[in-house]
Amino acid sequence: MKKALPPMVIAAVASLQAYAGTVTTNGPDIVIDTNSGLEVKTVDGDYAFKLGGRVQIDYNTYDGVINTVEGETGSDLFFRRARLELKGKAKDWSYNISYNLTDSGSIDKLFLTYNGWNEMARLSIGEQKEFFGLEDTGSSKWITAIERSMPSSAFDVGDNMGIKIHGANDLLTYSAGIYKESVDAADNSLDTAITGRLVFRPVYNESMLVHLGGGLTLRDGSFDGFGARLGVRGGENGTANAVAAGYVAGNVDDLSAYNLELAISMESLHLMAEYFDGKISGSGAPDIDADGYYIQLGWIMTGERRKYKTSIAAFDKVKPNSSGGAWEIFGRYDNLDVSNNNALITESGEQADSLTLGVNWYMNSLLKLSANYVHTETDENIGGEDDGDALVARLQYAF
Amino acid sequence: MKKALPPMVIAAVASLQAYAGTVTTNGPDIVIDTNSGLEVKTVDGDYAFKLGGRVQIDYNTYDGVINTVEGETGSDLFFRRARLELKGKAKDWSYNISYNLTDSGSIDKLFLTYNGWNEMARLSIGEQKEFFGLEDTGSSKWITAIERSMPSSAFDVGDNMGIKIHGANDLLTYSAGIYKESVDAADNSLDTAITGRLVFRPVYNESMLVHLGGGLTLRDGSFDGFGARLGVRGGENGTANAVAAGYVAGNVDDLSAYNLELAISMESLHLMAEYFDGKISGSGAPDIDADGYYIQLGWIMTGERRKYKTSIAAFDKVKPNSSGGAWEIFGRYDNLDVSNNNALITESGEQADSLTLGVNWYMNSLLKLSANYVHTETDENIGGEDDGDALVARLQYAF
Amino acid sequence: MKKALPPMVIAAVASLQAYAGTVTTNGPDIVIDTNSGLEVKTVDGDYAFKLGGRVQIDYNTYDGVINTVEGETGSDLFFRRARLELKGKAKDWSYNISYNLTDSGSIDKLFLTYNGWNEMARLSIGEQKEFFGLEDTGSSKWITAIERSMPSSAFDVGDNMGIKIHGANDLLTYSAGIYKESVDAADNSLDTAITGRLVFRPVYNESMLVHLGGGLTLRDGSFDGFGARLGVRGGENGTANAVAAGYVAGNVDDLSAYNLELAISMESLHLMAEYFDGKISGSGAPDIDADGYYIQLGWIMTGERRKYKTSIAAFDKVKPNSSGGAWEIFGRYDNLDVSNNNALITESGEQADSLTLGVNWYMNSLLKLSANYVHTETDENIGGEDDGDALVARLQYAF
Repeated sequence: MKKALPPMVIAAVASLQAYAGTVTTNGPDIVIDTNSGLEVKTVDGDYAFKLGGRVQIDYNTYDGVINTVEGETGSDLFFRRARLELKGKAKDWSYNISYNLTDSGSIDKLFLTYNGWNEMARLSIGEQKEFFGLEDTGSSKWITAIERSMPSSAFDVGDNMGIKIHGANDLLTYSAGIYKESVDAADNSLDTAITGRLVFRPVYNESMLVHLGGGLTLRDGSFDGFGARLGVRGGENGTANAVAAGYVAGNVDDLSAYNLELAISMESLHLMAEYFDGKISGSGAPDIDADGYYIQLGWIMTGERRKYKTSIAAFDKVKPNSSGGAWEIFGRYDNLDVSNNNALITESGEQADSLTLGVNWYMNSLLKLSANYVHTETDENIGGEDDGDALVARLQYAF
Repeated sequence: MKKALPPMVIAAVASLQAYAGTVTTNGPDIVIDTNSGLEVKTVDGDYAFKLGGRVQIDYNTYDGVINTVEGETGSDLFFRRARLELKGKAKDWSYNISYNLTDSGSIDKLFLTYNGWNEMARLSIGEQKEFFGLEDTGSSKWITAIERSMPSSAFDVGDNMGIKIHGANDLLTYSAGIYKESVDAADNSLDTAITGRLVFRPVYNESMLVHLGGGLTLRDGSFDGFGARLGVRGGENGTANAVAAGYVAGNVDDLSAYNLELAISMESLHLMAEYFDGKISGSGAPDIDADGYYIQLGWIMTGERRKYKTSIAAFDKVKPNSSGGAWEIFGRYDNLDVSNNNALITESGEQADSLTLGVNWYMNSLLKLSANYVHTETDENIGGEDDGDALVARLQYAF
Repeated sequence: MKKALPPMVIAAVASLQAYAGTVTTNGPDIVIDTNSGLEVKTVDGDYAFKLGGRVQIDYNTYDGVINTVEGETGSDLFFRRARLELKGKAKDWSYNISYNLTDSGSIDKLFLTYNGWNEMARLSIGEQKEFFGLEDTGSSKWITAIERSMPSSAFDVGDNMGIKIHGANDLLTYSAGIYKESVDAADNSLDTAITGRLVFRPVYNESMLVHLGGGLTLRDGSFDGFGARLGVRGGENGTANAVAAGYVAGNVDDLSAYNLELAISMESLHLMAEYFDGKISGSGAPDIDADGYYIQLGWIMTGERRKYKTSIAAFDKVKPNSSGGAWEIFGRYDNLDVSNNNALITESGEQADSLTLGVNWYMNSLLKLSANYVHTETDENIGGEDDGDALVARLQYAF
């Protein structure tokens, strides 16, 4: 720095100072991004902070067996999800907070993760996904249909407080954890659930993915049955029927379920299929059995490929290549069978099948517009009807 | 500046680098501001993020017909509003989240706006203001009195989920939208409302504004009457009487209302007036009619002018010119008439008039301190009284 | 640009531009920090913004008199606290928002502070701590045991809406305020509480602190008794017994209480003790008396010293000196006596003593892992038992 700066450079610096104050940091160098949310991280990767969220505005119209009112067409416009999301990292530890703004506020997820060992062994503590099922493990932002399939919903174990060890490399992804299912009113002690999942990727390269997986959950608690809405949400507040089986009176103690997963992604095509089987059992009551499956085929007409996250072994976002966005069409067929021939078990619909046809427009990396047509049939009448149709649309903003 | 930087400047730069890490961005250049909240935007204006909020702490003391307990003076100290506000922008789309921290949390507003056409045509989707009435359309942060007038409250349609097209230039502002009013329990289908507003500004320049407007709302749903508190909130939890008319039994299907707006702002003076007229009607029940008006005159003694936003055709903040803040005095007279001579309609007060005199101290761009005196009279006794007085004070922090 | 920049400068600028956009500010110079939360402040100290939070995940197992179910061991895993915290400053005013994410969301604290006079006179307005008691005034993040002592809980006045004047220098700390206790249903008027606290520090230097203090609270409202859980929280939802005294029927109007505080900190040792005494009284009912005390001794084996904040006259965080973290052991004995010999007063346990032994591992400035063993005895049986044990563990992340 022995030579003088030339005059023009000095002038430029001076004029900059006229309108721009400096922004510095006391610690390691920082990088900031705003993509309508806010992301701040240190260049060395040790510390990070991100504030974002997701908003899903749904319009549903549905008739027949789907509507709880016989012979009428129901409709609604509502927030399917509205969440504020906060993530941060300090060296080996990270946190993840997802808060539901709907329904007067509630914790969706809130957990800490220890990342200090390696990618094959991370520990998460707190309210989190148990990781059971391919469709359930993937984010609600990036499922292909507007709603998850009936079997995924019926066997969804939800977000629970617990401890999970998980890891992944290119070949496999695993997770195993113990979770709070409930507190037993008889003695105030914890009822727990154990859930594990294992996924292999015999093929995983730039153009192709083959995903083979399975999961198991063993749950101690108080269970009254299996059920799922008929392929669509219907209105915001319980205005759609469900296919379900449950006890005439009382609950029992044990629930066990397993699933099998297959996914193949080839360039802009993807195939997904899952099978679920579960049982509720306990002394003094008959078992309730349920099983179901779905198969889904999707094609992104504009040539993009669905992203896939090895860390959770699930599909993720579609990032459009061009300013016109990415267009995807898909079809899904799903089935849930809850028929149990026993006088102590009440049933609604016995078995349901639904066909979902849809189109997704990924307008840019933040916005997604979706439209689905759903046709549902049940084996037995629910409220005097055994089939129904729905049109559902969603505008999603995820920042 | 022809000469080289003197050694001391070089030394200063070097020492700065000793304790200050750099802050950069991966994308377009960014500008950051903190005014006790946080604002981050790209220099090109394409992306933005803002986190702020509003807090209103109110102290009320009130007697006579205002207090639900006859012959007693009520009082309370409480958060009138406490909201966290998040706004962001990514090119043509923006979002706006306002969350109520009070009452165990709820969404106040949450909507997306498409700004990609031009200022005369923007589209907003989500939970939003319908834009009906001058006082109701303006922010609760910048109304002149502590509470909106009785007719503004009686005809307030609230924030609703829907779609609105709106636009503005210097001459006119318009909005038209369709909103979710409720879901009909008889068939689970959406009841909707249509609301429009049109405002002209025949005069709009540096020193003077003339605002002429009107609005209309047609609502399908389930309505039981019209009413408003008597000019003050009273306590936090329903401890103040209301002038109201409602059905003895049951609700009906249709509500329609219109309003007319006049505002004149000349230097530090402003005049505001509105008239509202509405009707609830349906088969098998008598109509309920209501109308009301207010007129308000305000003067900012320190010479500032109330800001006005053409985008919503409503008054906005007062920015003090000096470090002593801006001082405003105002008076407002308002009336709400809900008298309906019918045995199937119950009434409380029949008609109410109130006079509000107040002073606002805009301490700086974030803080506002207000004190209002309110005198109210009703045509008929409510709980044995027909007039009352109140003193209300507010400390507001909006960041 | 006729003259060339020296080659090295050009190279440096070019490489910077390859990956880094600029970040500036329109106002005074800004400093940004992320320590997994986000902190932004101007260099001149006039403006600041901070977003952080605290998460406490507790595991409890407890038996005997502690569990509401006789003869059984209770257990639970839950969020003891999960809060989002927002602080900001604009010249003389600052705000402080703490929001509970648990239990469907609620305001924990939300207040404004005027700092424009000096450190001996600050004014806080809004929902805030009243500052009564040493253990209660300190943050729940930095109490030594997992739960505060029984007398601290029994005499905790909570966070309330009000106005408080407070100040501190090295020698003394004081606070005095008036708060909303409740709204009287008989006339809708405010019931208020007056609370004051005074602390002297005859010794306060690098190696030693002697803290002597006392407080008084006089409360007008509606009170039904005194009580506290038996040294541990038990499960999330009221599954642990309490030592308590209350009226058989009805409430009375006045509560008064005082306390005395002693704390000595010498290098890595600390001693804390408090005594509380209170009375509930009113016409037509007997008084309810209660008193209690605790004494606590702690030693940080790795040599760190507990921080102490003169502004609130309470202990604060432990900052580990080494990467292995700081290790602390402590013991606490506490007692709460609510025995009142009167047929109109119901009692549970009469008097309780508990001994708490624990270890804290301050892993780094964000993470704390704690384990406590608690043994409790009551004078009278509660649900057939008069002693019990508990093991409680906590993982805390405060960013």
